[in-house]
Amino acid sequence: MKIIVDAMGGDNAPKAPVLGALQANEKYGVDIILVGRGEDILKVLQESGRQELPKGVEIAHASEVVEICDDPANAFRRKKDSSLTVGLNLLRDGQGDGFVSAGSTGALLSAATLITKRIKGIRRAALAPVVPTGNGGAVLIDCGANVKCPAEYLLQFAYMGSYYAQKMLGRENPKVGLLNIGAEPSKGTDLQVEVYPLLEQAGREGRINFVGNVEAREAVEGAVDVIVSDGYAGNIFLKTMEGTGLFLAREIKKIFLKNIFTKLAAVLVSGGLKDFKKMMSSSEIGGTALVGISKPVIKAHGSSDAYAIQNAVRQAMEYSRSGMIESVSEHIDLMRLDFSEKNQE
Amino acid sequence: MKIIVDAMGGDNAPKAPVLGALQANEKYGVDIILVGRGEDILKVLQESGRQELPKGVEIAHASEVVEICDDPANAFRRKKDSSLTVGLNLLRDGQGDGFVSAGSTGALLSAATLITKRIKGIRRAALAPVVPTGNGGAVLIDCGANVKCPAEYLLQFAYMGSYYAQKMLGRENPKVGLLNIGAEPSKGTDLQVEVYPLLEQAGREGRINFVGNVEAREAVEGAVDVIVSDGYAGNIFLKTMEGTGLFLAREIKKIFLKNIFTKLAAVLVSGGLKDFKKMMSSSEIGGTALVGISKPVIKAHGSSDAYAIQNAVRQAMEYSRSGMIESVSEHIDLMRLDFSEKNQE
Repeated sequence: MKIIVDAMGGDNAPKAPVLGALQANEKYGVDIILVGRGEDILKVLQESGRQELPKGVEIAHASEVVEICDDPANAFRRKKDSSLTVGLNLLRDGQGDGFVSAGSTGALLSAATLITKRIKGIRRAALAPVVPTGNGGAVLIDCGANVKCPAEYLLQFAYMGSYYAQKMLGRENPKVGLLNIGAEPSKGTDLQVEVYPLLEQAGREGRINFVGNVEAREAVEGAVDVIVSDGYAGNIFLKTMEGTGLFLAREIKKIFLKNIFTKLAAVLVSGGLKDFKKMMSSSEIGGTALVGISKPVIKAHGSSDAYAIQNAVRQAMEYSRSGMIESVSEHIDLMRLDFSEKNQE
Repeated sequence: MKIIVDAMGGDNAPKAPVLGALQANEKYGVDIILVGRGEDILKVLQESGRQELPKGVEIAHASEVVEICDDPANAFRRKKDSSLTVGLNLLRDGQGDGFVSAGSTGALLSAATLITKRIKGIRRAALAPVVPTGNGGAVLIDCGANVKCPAEYLLQFAYMGSYYAQKMLGRENPKVGLLNIGAEPSKGTDLQVEVYPLLEQAGREGRINFVGNVEAREAVEGAVDVIVSDGYAGNIFLKTMEGTGLFLAREIKKIFLKNIFTKLAAVLVSGGLKDFKKMMSSSEIGGTALVGISKPVIKAHGSSDAYAIQNAVRQAMEYSRSGMIESVSEHIDLMRLDFSEKNQE
């Protein structure tokens, strides 16, 4: 197993991606290709006290870096020698089993779609993070890659999310819910109203376990394993969760910092608080899979530290091993609107 | 000041609305009309040890009750002698200064729109709750009344939200943000892209303090005083906040229940936890204003207890006193798309 890591992407590059990739190499025995400016990568190695490249780690030099100001849609074409473009070309050519980047989401999405390509028949790739919920996490698909979605996209997201929950989270017969503002099939925008019967049909035929509409509150509490949404509402959902988590964590912290007694209390519950922090932390999960791309591509959070990158590499390994992409390919005919319509007649 | 209270609406009716209204009468000296089945209301009074109606409290008998299974759009017409219809008729006829109900949101919205009517020129009433945020709360408008919104609705929501933040929350020059998935004016669905320049123009002319798009995360953290949204995304935002709050509160509780030491810790921080609970509790706020209706109408949470109803009555009093409805009426010309378009030429 060999994972390609964008050494130049993210707020803490090149240090975090390089060190995170090395940690993954040590911990999981995975081979690594670090893509980026050779001299920058070597400097990080030296500063960390390493005189040579560890076994199984190689560098693929790329002289350019995609910056935050670059137009996401064209960055990879304009900067042909960027770590993004070089890394994804290596992935396409079979030089590695997955690609991890903490760089621009938009640029990664465009580049992965156009270099690595989508799974044949998949209309759009989706960002599918695992969000912390009352049932130990759910796949949210999509969370921002596709703002405007026709019904077919959401039908495909439902299938892909379902395979993801099975293969990556180990859920048997994962419950698939359509993110909505009420339980009745008539609820929501035109999109949800149109998608509902398609998902219901797929459910009736036993191809996914569609449990109906799911309200945001129940989704957080853990009612489903897969939350199907357009990218706009999915992003609102994800960012509201993040914001509320941060806001509440700060308020809780204030409670413990009040006086000597509350500080003592903090010591008494420190174990629990640590577990809690871990549960809420995005670095534990690693990153967000670009589901629908024909090879494993993981978007790590822009603010990833080395530990988050290490976990993103682990996630890329698991994604590659999971058989997720193969399952989607095998069942692609079920995910086409013309198929659903034909079947409904 | 006299507030009309729907004694039959909500999960805990008639007990919670009746007792909550009596508490408001005692605490704020406000006159009350309890609308509902006379015998049911009197029974609650007797069970609470009262032999007669307190001073300033009267009963308006209504024999019917709008049930959860009634079609929201027509409930008030079909059940002409329901507490909802009778109460709103009293409000329209000037028998009271505001109306509070914990009954069905949809039925209340339809009935208020058709009986009490909207403010002249306002295209749609909106549900505008105050959500807990890092800056001490923000007005979210809309959160579910209007799923499909043309741009003009959101322009009006922005103005009405701004007046609400001024008049009800005491914010000077309230910051108005358009809920979106990125900062750039090009972000979002067609709706946000179309609304952005309208809000920008209103901001440029000093009529509202438009600060641009606001992402859900920043909105929760307290970046703005008014969060402008269509009802679909606003509902996702609100319910995600609620769900995340409940989920985290449960996880925090688990930490404290672990063993004898953590239970001691809970005692040490009990004051802070109580304040925290209060901040997060919807019963403190009271309810959600139906902004845009020509008289104060407050939707209390379906699960309201007496304390929540008491606060909803207080909120109706404040709304009536605030001058909010008058401000909207006075400036209605600014909130019309034809005005904005004319000005832009």
